[in-house]
Amino acid sequence: MIIRNDSFLIVAVLGAADPSHFRTRPVAALSVDLRGILGGRHYGFTRAAGAREPWYPRKTEMRSGRQVTVVSMEELAQVAMRMELPMVEPGWIGADVVTRGVPDLTGLPWGTRLECGSGAVLVNEGENAPCRFAGAEIARHYPDRPGLDRLFPKAAIHLRGILASVELAGTIAPGPVTLRVPPQRPWRGSK
Amino acid sequence: MIIRNDSFLIVAVLGAADPSHFRTRPVAALSVDLRGILGGRHYGFTRAAGAREPWYPRKTEMRSGRQVTVVSMEELAQVAMRMELPMVEPGWIGADVVTRGVPDLTGLPWGTRLECGSGAVLVNEGENAPCRFAGAEIARHYPDRPGLDRLFPKAAIHLRGILASVELAGTIAPGPVTLRVPPQRPWRGSK
Repeated sequence: MIIRNDSFLIVAVLGAADPSHFRTRPVAALSVDLRGILGGRHYGFTRAAGAREPWYPRKTEMRSGRQVTVVSMEELAQVAMRMELPMVEPGWIGADVVTRGVPDLTGLPWGTRLECGSGAVLVNEGENAPCRFAGAEIARHYPDRPGLDRLFPKAAIHLRGILASVELAGTIAPGPVTLRVPPQRPWRGSK
Repeated sequence: MIIRNDSFLIVAVLGAADPSHFRTRPVAALSVDLRGILGGRHYGFTRAAGAREPWYPRKTEMRSGRQVTVVSMEELAQVAMRMELPMVEPGWIGADVVTRGVPDLTGLPWGTRLECGSGAVLVNEGENAPCRFAGAEIARHYPDRPGLDRLFPKAAIHLRGILASVELAGTIAPGPVTLRVPPQRPWRGSK
């Protein structure tokens, strides 16, 4: 199912602010190849297993599946509201791409293609799990609010956006985005 | 959701029969790294766009997503029945891995991990689309039955198994397989 909708937009793209940290900051455009974002922290077809994959020995080389992180304005606004904060900036939590108008971004079916008007195509690799490290970065901006680091993972569950891989190299820049959504049918084995 | 079930099995693995053709034949085990099956036809993180991606210029380098193909005994038996054939052998249609006991293999949620008891881990990249070339190979085994090449894509729809990428390198051999199924929730944007 292809969904073209004038209200589906990429409204910002962000690049690494400092190679030693996950923070990102707005840039004009991102160049991506099939390994990910050029100059990005998660560039590569593979990565080392970490805390998110407790079932693999730590540092084992594994398929990446998280070259690009995408968040939505609306979802981040909802997270901020739940945390009783004026805002949560995409760059604080290391987002690479920010959408507006895409409903339920975090719930997009796995395998959905995001065809950027600027040329690159991303594949949704599933929901991003909000973690305490991103929470700590938010907390740093609100020093008078203790406990935000631990509040974030709860407040942002199912609102943290998606992880994606690059299917087609090119540019990601603000502008329209088209969704190619695979058929959704419930797995009969789950009954 | 992790599903361990003694009846979930890999019952056969197949290797390239001839590098110039997609046919495969039973082997004792497959060695896979993060690029796919060593010596396999679809080895690589990337591949050239083809007829399955008419939206990309032909031969554009794109993310592979089809390093390994997995089929199920039960589904192939159903395809054979629909085609009124005694059998459809996995190797005829180029399958790499054959399961038995996994219900609705083709409908497994995208992103499901298949943890092979023999060590390798695969990620489901979605349903395989049955094509006329595989149909022609089936037809070759039943020369008295015209039209099987075109019948296969119809008979095998939603029964052709899945495409997968390697998440963790290792061996794929007959034996148990454990499923790690991601949460399934309908996308709210599809309403």
